[in-house]
Amino acid sequence: MRALVFERKLEYVTDYPTPVPKLDEALIRVTRAGICNTDIEIIKGYMNFHGIPGHEFTGVVEKCEDKDLTGKRVVGEINIGCNTCSFCRNNMRNHCPDRSVLGILNRNGAFAEYLTLPLSNLHLIPDSISDNEAVFVEPLAAAFEILRQVDLAPADKVCVLGDGKLGLIAGQVLASTGCDLVVAGKHKENLSILEEMGIRTELVSTGASGAIDKLPLQIGDKGGQFDIVIDCTGSSFGIENALDIVKPGGKIILKTTVADTVPLDINRIVIREISLIGSRCGPFKPAIHSIETKKVNLLPLVSAVFSLKDGIEALEFASRRGVLKVILELD
Amino acid sequence: MRALVFERKLEYVTDYPTPVPKLDEALIRVTRAGICNTDIEIIKGYMNFHGIPGHEFTGVVEKCEDKDLTGKRVVGEINIGCNTCSFCRNNMRNHCPDRSVLGILNRNGAFAEYLTLPLSNLHLIPDSISDNEAVFVEPLAAAFEILRQVDLAPADKVCVLGDGKLGLIAGQVLASTGCDLVVAGKHKENLSILEEMGIRTELVSTGASGAIDKLPLQIGDKGGQFDIVIDCTGSSFGIENALDIVKPGGKIILKTTVADTVPLDINRIVIREISLIGSRCGPFKPAIHSIETKKVNLLPLVSAVFSLKDGIEALEFASRRGVLKVILELD
Repeated sequence: MRALVFERKLEYVTDYPTPVPKLDEALIRVTRAGICNTDIEIIKGYMNFHGIPGHEFTGVVEKCEDKDLTGKRVVGEINIGCNTCSFCRNNMRNHCPDRSVLGILNRNGAFAEYLTLPLSNLHLIPDSISDNEAVFVEPLAAAFEILRQVDLAPADKVCVLGDGKLGLIAGQVLASTGCDLVVAGKHKENLSILEEMGIRTELVSTGASGAIDKLPLQIGDKGGQFDIVIDCTGSSFGIENALDIVKPGGKIILKTTVADTVPLDINRIVIREISLIGSRCGPFKPAIHSIETKKVNLLPLVSAVFSLKDGIEALEFASRRGVLKVILELD
Repeated sequence: MRALVFERKLEYVTDYPTPVPKLDEALIRVTRAGICNTDIEIIKGYMNFHGIPGHEFTGVVEKCEDKDLTGKRVVGEINIGCNTCSFCRNNMRNHCPDRSVLGILNRNGAFAEYLTLPLSNLHLIPDSISDNEAVFVEPLAAAFEILRQVDLAPADKVCVLGDGKLGLIAGQVLASTGCDLVVAGKHKENLSILEEMGIRTELVSTGASGAIDKLPLQIGDKGGQFDIVIDCTGSSFGIENALDIVKPGGKIILKTTVADTVPLDINRIVIREISLIGSRCGPFKPAIHSIETKKVNLLPLVSAVFSLKDGIEALEFASRRGVLKVILELD
């Protein structure tokens, strides 16, 4: 089959062996795959991954034990657990210590004609959701993870820091809760996507260091004004910026992963009793439902669609400043 | 009055002006004051504090508007809020941006014959509680803050890291909840205090760096075995050690403040969805109740009692390795 394969560098090949599904798995013909920042990091060596990257996808079930699924459009959860450890038994297979992760850890991913996943990872996609929208289900689920981790009330003041892909998606998910929201970012054109949806945004400037040097957000009560801050900056300065604007007793949701360690003034966390909450993969069902009911609008986030054979160029394009979602199309 | 005063260095003086209480305040004659690590840091320059240190105390109300309080034994909460900001109005005066803090921030403290505090900060001490026990109410309340921040179930596996004063107090408070607890520390003699109370402990070793180099705690499920880890190490290595042993999806309560920034691998927090929760002052009522009902036993933690005039020597002694609570006695 055709695939993008990363060994020491990313290559497009046409003769990769088509995967063979196990008994509880489905063979899925990929129709679209999204490029995530994690993929860009992987081809720089992140996770020491070798094989076919890609974990955001939609496709059609070609073959599996469940005849009702065959021929159906699906998306898939990316963590594959051992099904026996305490995490798997407690519905936390995302944290199974022996898990594989589609296109990220010990398992070939979606930048290929075919992939396999356990049936229990699959979710049907209704006809009303287009392929380009379905590609967003996985990152959208990661934004819904925030709602699983904190209780939001309409009076809560919430700030999403960052206007990249995840910031724009998280902003839409949080706006749907009716909280008092502002999305702060550096890219006027990205923020305008949210402004057009009626979501309040703030354009912030950054200093030479890359840190936000002045948050125009009005700081209330000296100690910061936000009950909850979501760090989607993708920057090692994200935490400190979040600490600048969160209220004492408030919560910071960390979506940012960075290669280096971050020097952190933990006294700011202890004295002000801040909660820092790491946040990763999330639930697919509310993500699919929110697209179906048009609570979110993801298509303005599509910057470009490339065919799989132009995948190397697509990943290069996706890593450019200001570019949002790049989708690989398989005919 | 007699007092220990810190300007550029700590001095014992006999002619310090006795404070004059405001209308809503009480004048309190201090009978005992405890030495906390914060006091030791303050006389090294922490908080840039000048004046009389000390925030753990018990005393007798000498003068106030409320005649029922006069002559009564009390302890006092240490944060004095503005009473008008949103934090003070929401019962969070500990986080009032204009607060003063007894013996820590803009307010003279307890290493003196007299101090003043608002009546609303005071709590009566029952006769069944001795003066030496009453001195522990403030740090004990800080341990009860943990129970306000996390819901504990008997099946929860909990580890307190650190066997200094706060570790031993937090260990007793957590043991009283019936959770599955172990207290890990470096000092066999300190841990033995808890062992005698039937609390499970683990002696850990530390490498040259000061980090715990080998946690003897058996690591289950690869990803760490504890639902909740309380960092009472007072060490900048505390967070990393806590991350080593906490389960994915688990919680780390941070009690440690350190002078320097700490290099933190935030990916460990994000990917494993850990919550880091800063924790400081806590509720006095359950602290007093737990002493009264003998749920905790604090007297074994008293390493020495000095008179106020020997306060400089007392603070030096309190800073020695392995020494637990040192109390200043006022005749």
